[in-house]
Amino acid sequence: MVKLSLPRTVEWMDGNVKMINQLLLPWKLEYIVTDNYERVADAIKRMEVRGAPAIGVAAAFAMALAALKIDTEDVGLALKKMEEAKLKLANTRPTAINLFWALERIHRKAVKSCNVDELKRRILKEAMSIAREDEEVNRKIGEHGEPLINDGSKIITVCNAGSLATSYFGTALAPIYTAWMRGKQLEVIVMETRPYMQGSRLTAWELSKAGIPVKVITDNSIGIVVEREKVDLAFVGADRVTKDGYIINKIGTYPLALVCREKKIPVFSFAPTSTIDPSKTIKEVEIEKRPSEEVIFFMNKRLAPEGVEAIYYAFDVTPPNLVEGIVTEKGILRQPLRESISKLIK
Amino acid sequence: MVKLSLPRTVEWMDGNVKMINQLLLPWKLEYIVTDNYERVADAIKRMEVRGAPAIGVAAAFAMALAALKIDTEDVGLALKKMEEAKLKLANTRPTAINLFWALERIHRKAVKSCNVDELKRRILKEAMSIAREDEEVNRKIGEHGEPLINDGSKIITVCNAGSLATSYFGTALAPIYTAWMRGKQLEVIVMETRPYMQGSRLTAWELSKAGIPVKVITDNSIGIVVEREKVDLAFVGADRVTKDGYIINKIGTYPLALVCREKKIPVFSFAPTSTIDPSKTIKEVEIEKRPSEEVIFFMNKRLAPEGVEAIYYAFDVTPPNLVEGIVTEKGILRQPLRESISKLIK
Repeated sequence: MVKLSLPRTVEWMDGNVKMINQLLLPWKLEYIVTDNYERVADAIKRMEVRGAPAIGVAAAFAMALAALKIDTEDVGLALKKMEEAKLKLANTRPTAINLFWALERIHRKAVKSCNVDELKRRILKEAMSIAREDEEVNRKIGEHGEPLINDGSKIITVCNAGSLATSYFGTALAPIYTAWMRGKQLEVIVMETRPYMQGSRLTAWELSKAGIPVKVITDNSIGIVVEREKVDLAFVGADRVTKDGYIINKIGTYPLALVCREKKIPVFSFAPTSTIDPSKTIKEVEIEKRPSEEVIFFMNKRLAPEGVEAIYYAFDVTPPNLVEGIVTEKGILRQPLRESISKLIK
Repeated sequence: MVKLSLPRTVEWMDGNVKMINQLLLPWKLEYIVTDNYERVADAIKRMEVRGAPAIGVAAAFAMALAALKIDTEDVGLALKKMEEAKLKLANTRPTAINLFWALERIHRKAVKSCNVDELKRRILKEAMSIAREDEEVNRKIGEHGEPLINDGSKIITVCNAGSLATSYFGTALAPIYTAWMRGKQLEVIVMETRPYMQGSRLTAWELSKAGIPVKVITDNSIGIVVEREKVDLAFVGADRVTKDGYIINKIGTYPLALVCREKKIPVFSFAPTSTIDPSKTIKEVEIEKRPSEEVIFFMNKRLAPEGVEAIYYAFDVTPPNLVEGIVTEKGILRQPLRESISKLIK
């Protein structure tokens, strides 16, 4: 067994949240350590922490931070404070389901408390569970996905659905880490993923830290690269899977899936079942639009002429028929996806 | 008629070539003025001048510069010098057909010369013709393409197939300029086009100079943008069209064409007939690979961890069935493309 040398992305440490500041990678490995839940909310908004599961864990810990700061004995008042924190955290980013899922889970535990001490204990315990389960879930996703990889496989991925997108071990990269630890040779090609470059900055960073061969491509070169470089598989994450089987994931996923269909390359999405939205169809989900400046400015330099703006959607939508399956901690959801999902959420 | 305020991209001026240094746009409008053909070769290699037709014109003028420097009376020796210049210019970039086509055209004129004076005259005259014809051809492409645009059309494009890619007026942007001059309202969405950002730097620059509304998107967001922003048409250029109808154009064209097929949006390619390669099928054309550093470094900053390299193809390949037609100066080549092309090149 090969050992992995990967730092944890988000963890609880002596009454603080400790998170890798992902905006500084790959240049500097620096942590944000804070006991202030609003600082965590900012980190989510600014994308210092990103990736649907990591956001969920960070938000859960942020709720614990908020709880620990409560200085009243009145449980009604305390719950009101928690509602405030929940609202603030929920208003950071609109698309990833894990955020709301984690906040709800904490909330459900909190409301059952008879006194403030119990409330604090319950919330912290639940947040710790969310973090621990996240890693367990990822390791299981790795188990279920590992057999998809052959010795020598070349895998293309987009953005970062790796350890950095979770508390540890990743989703789409989990089977890659699992296969690697078991001695399979493999190679990853990662789309750089404009505008934040999560592919070249984060995925390339964590894979090369783990010793796994990785090459970067521009997002627009998927068409020629998949064919000429003889890619075998496409592994992508998911920020949300709707109940009708649509995969909402980082922009670039949908064009990649179209290219893969043309070139007969199987596409798998990897996500914990918590990513599956049991209540909404694709028509009911908001796709996050972000500020023009995040595209137009790069390292403080304007990339377009004065007066020209950008349209920036953070995610795109891949219809269910373009993926071979969704790999979850409970196994692989196969086609027809809609049916597999409805069976799962029943 | 609305007037266009667009500077010329490449021109002949008092024994010099004068070219916009496109690496400095949109920040600075600066010209390269030189009487040294090797400087022009460097400019092509470094992409200070880029775009298939502009490269052809620049190379033709470079041949004229080389001819004017000849200081022998021996026509055989002079032709040898011209062969040298031709070889040097041909070795700058491998994919765009116009480069070789322009060099051949000059060469064919040169070899017919009886003396060195005649050789110089013939070459300069032919180079001027190539430049003048380029603009004429583009204006005709604009005429043939203009009726495709409705009042209020929203058009997506990739890279720069605009005035900056030619001596003047552009190819894919020619019908847009024509429609605009005739008072049609329209809007352009341009893919930024990593790694050189020809979309956000050049296309956005020339369109906004002309007063045409333009917005920029990241290359990976085509899937969601085409649908949510209700794009009507996709207009792309071509660096080479093979005799079997494949369109070799800037990376991103093929995924865009796939997205457009899914969303039922017509895709047109715009190119002078000189872009059509009468001799080669797609299997016989080299797709240019460029250095890893051009992707990994951006404004002198490393975007990926140390030791990680990129795979960088400059072009991709769009099969004939994905485009509605190729708009040339001789009219629109319609489906089946292969047949239309073979009729044209007969």
